[in-house]
Amino acid sequence: MNSTKQKTKTAITPTREMDYPEWYQQIIKAADLAEVSPVRGCMTIKPWGYALWENMQRVIDERLKATGHKNVCFPLLIPANFLEKEAEHVTGFAKECAVVTHCRLVHDEEGKLVPSSPLEEPYIIRPTSETIIGEAFSRWIQSYRDLPLLVNQWVNVMRWEMRTRLFLRTSEFLWQEGHTAHATSAEAQQEALKIFDLYAQFAEDYMAMPVIKGEKTASERFPGAVNTYTIEAMMQDKKALQAGTSHFLGQNFAKAFNIKFLSPQGKEEFAYTTSWGVSTRLIGGLIMTHSDDNGLVLPPRLAPLHVVLLPIMHHEESRADVLTYCEQLAEELRQIYYDNRYLAVEIDTRELTGGEKAWSWVKKGVPLRVEVGPKEYENKTVFIGRRDQEYKERHSLSRQEFLATVISQLDTLQTTLFKRASDFQKRHTLTIDNQADFYQFFSDAESGFALAHWNGDPAIEAKVKQDLNVTIRCIPQLANLEPGKCIFSDKSSPQRVIFAKSY
Amino acid sequence: MNSTKQKTKTAITPTREMDYPEWYQQIIKAADLAEVSPVRGCMTIKPWGYALWENMQRVIDERLKATGHKNVCFPLLIPANFLEKEAEHVTGFAKECAVVTHCRLVHDEEGKLVPSSPLEEPYIIRPTSETIIGEAFSRWIQSYRDLPLLVNQWVNVMRWEMRTRLFLRTSEFLWQEGHTAHATSAEAQQEALKIFDLYAQFAEDYMAMPVIKGEKTASERFPGAVNTYTIEAMMQDKKALQAGTSHFLGQNFAKAFNIKFLSPQGKEEFAYTTSWGVSTRLIGGLIMTHSDDNGLVLPPRLAPLHVVLLPIMHHEESRADVLTYCEQLAEELRQIYYDNRYLAVEIDTRELTGGEKAWSWVKKGVPLRVEVGPKEYENKTVFIGRRDQEYKERHSLSRQEFLATVISQLDTLQTTLFKRASDFQKRHTLTIDNQADFYQFFSDAESGFALAHWNGDPAIEAKVKQDLNVTIRCIPQLANLEPGKCIFSDKSSPQRVIFAKSY
Repeated sequence: MNSTKQKTKTAITPTREMDYPEWYQQIIKAADLAEVSPVRGCMTIKPWGYALWENMQRVIDERLKATGHKNVCFPLLIPANFLEKEAEHVTGFAKECAVVTHCRLVHDEEGKLVPSSPLEEPYIIRPTSETIIGEAFSRWIQSYRDLPLLVNQWVNVMRWEMRTRLFLRTSEFLWQEGHTAHATSAEAQQEALKIFDLYAQFAEDYMAMPVIKGEKTASERFPGAVNTYTIEAMMQDKKALQAGTSHFLGQNFAKAFNIKFLSPQGKEEFAYTTSWGVSTRLIGGLIMTHSDDNGLVLPPRLAPLHVVLLPIMHHEESRADVLTYCEQLAEELRQIYYDNRYLAVEIDTRELTGGEKAWSWVKKGVPLRVEVGPKEYENKTVFIGRRDQEYKERHSLSRQEFLATVISQLDTLQTTLFKRASDFQKRHTLTIDNQADFYQFFSDAESGFALAHWNGDPAIEAKVKQDLNVTIRCIPQLANLEPGKCIFSDKSSPQRVIFAKSY
Repeated sequence: MNSTKQKTKTAITPTREMDYPEWYQQIIKAADLAEVSPVRGCMTIKPWGYALWENMQRVIDERLKATGHKNVCFPLLIPANFLEKEAEHVTGFAKECAVVTHCRLVHDEEGKLVPSSPLEEPYIIRPTSETIIGEAFSRWIQSYRDLPLLVNQWVNVMRWEMRTRLFLRTSEFLWQEGHTAHATSAEAQQEALKIFDLYAQFAEDYMAMPVIKGEKTASERFPGAVNTYTIEAMMQDKKALQAGTSHFLGQNFAKAFNIKFLSPQGKEEFAYTTSWGVSTRLIGGLIMTHSDDNGLVLPPRLAPLHVVLLPIMHHEESRADVLTYCEQLAEELRQIYYDNRYLAVEIDTRELTGGEKAWSWVKKGVPLRVEVGPKEYENKTVFIGRRDQEYKERHSLSRQEFLATVISQLDTLQTTLFKRASDFQKRHTLTIDNQADFYQFFSDAESGFALAHWNGDPAIEAKVKQDLNVTIRCIPQLANLEPGKCIFSDKSSPQRVIFAKSY
């Protein structure tokens, strides 16, 4: 399409181009997903945001159960001394954690509520649960027959973050954390990789968010892990978002918490453990992957609502007919099965103008908007707007045709979003072969992903981070490993790694 | 049946009769539902317990959504000064709460981890969320068009309880808490009563736990409520368990948090609010309502597993055939739809004796156990044990007949459990008409529910509590209000109330 460029007013101000971070905040506000709460660094997740999270949970939970994981719930609090037992772990988490020290509030002389009844030993609110689960595993596991032990929990965790941003980095967030124990190193590695694949598939198939799969370098690993596998996605400002991680913990936590089992040969051995998680951060990733200057764009497979019907109700004489027409259409739509659930359909009967109504749903990212006025009722048609298309591309369709094609339209939308994001990621991923180009690339405000050779030296990694605020996102899983020379040291490198600025 | 009494060894020691509180702990242990954690007063919910909770959640969540409630998630922490704003609320919750005072742990000179970086103002871990939700409602609600506002959250809460007991009373527990705001008092009252009915129906229809519906007296109300509606169930030791409450809060929280709206007439008015919740305490209620001296008994509509298949595998020659027979049977069973989900079926292939296997599932409360050995394979039969019947009442059935009757067997089990519990409750609910009988009734170790007249005087209520540790569980909703004379004061009483010892 060769349309003449025209200044169009956008529903979201500022646009992505004008001010990306502020655009992100405004998208969340316009879609009413969440808000900053009066509790430092913590968010309140509102109905539309929580419904999105529930849809993510449903899919991930089903897949975790199908692969033999059972849900559990461990305590919110962790005794401070538990953190100590794994050396890297305590360094990683003690510096930013919420500490519970008292179990009562009383009024002081000035009438102010102050802490009272100090605890003998402080607790922290879990930043993650390897330690308290490690303690339990040491009691639950006796023999090789108790292995593998595969548990997961959907809970809130807290890390006292200094700079927070809705969904992307908040002091409290929601997540699932899986914890498993195995008899052999190979089995535990396999488990960590299986979940890593599960996360990547979820990101791509459901969130329509292409990801690069790879391993973290030593300096970016989870505190206490032997290997950390990560999925990294490119946001529309070309920064990377770490969207999910899966850790092979070797015997580190088994030794720290004495998780031992009796082998079939009667020998006492330490188990091998894994842990892995995805969080409400995924919502931030989904927003930044697909949304445009008119608001949120939702992949149909995760949308809280697939279709919204917008009756035009200001013609008094046709109002009842239009409403009945909508109700019948909604009923038929709700009997259509799509991706393991029935279509979610709502009729918006608010007393607003057609434009106001339609735009409110554009901003919320609903895949299909169906306008129904007297004309549609007369002709047994609908007037459809699809969220991946321009607002003005709405078109008329017979009622029957709409019902017959609704699934394929949702599928097309889902595929289109993935392809767009995937093209974007490819377009902004460059192969870079010398240090000057590398520094040039990342000195731009908007850069991208750089595929470059690195010899594995953490000192280089640290310098690049300090100079450019760029990190190695991962050592990607590649079909063909092509060795080369490190662009910083000229030493040999087994494969290219991904560098980027990140969230 | 006039069987001669015989000493039967039970799977659970002690029996209910020997030591009810210890029996309760042993049931939980034998079914592997949960355990005491290293965190004071907090439990770890294990897979079987959590699966039960998930089934409860699924049903309640569907019903709340069907009645227009939307899920949200508010922060875990509450600024201490928020508690202040509602006078009764702060009195009710400040004395037992977890207080967060620092946001860092550091090592002291002796190498011990100690709190560091004190917060300017302390936070408490939510004991309930009226205050923080009230603050949000005051911003979310502007006009009568924003009402009713109906939200719910599934979260963890914490109350620093001194004496704890798995599921029944733990420092941390899981629950749903609903919070709504309305334009009129009548609408808010209606909402509180609607949820009250929903809870009662859930308890009876799903948990097979008969409940008495009524209102709390002023002294037993939720701190800050105008009316508290409660469902009360009788446990097998004849004590009452408060299983769920729904509160009409009037304008108390609206005034404390300034929740105002502009009426259609353009007048600024305070909203009326409600709150209501059920928690993991329901699991305690379910255990104590149905379990017997052989372990947990689960109502089929909430059981994590409906049918367990127990192949007898020690005959080498028939082993493969028996296993295939079980797998085919499991596949057919899994295609049967029962109460909005497919039958959950497992095959237990552990290398244990038939008896060990069967008893392990008796203790876990699985509704139907299906033993399959070479004989069953040969004759195309199954050997069925139903959890509401004695172990020795197992019987043979053709495979076809089993498949054709499995739903009706589950239904019968569900109905039987409800009827048993209902008969028990009726048998132990006495109408008492004078104070001497009342004191006599409650001086027994095992008493029951007493229906007696009371004139509404809180001093009498307090005295009975002090003398007998008996409280008014509720002022029951009765079909016919029959006035009478208070058995303590001889003053007039509008209706009988329920007295009992309680959890």
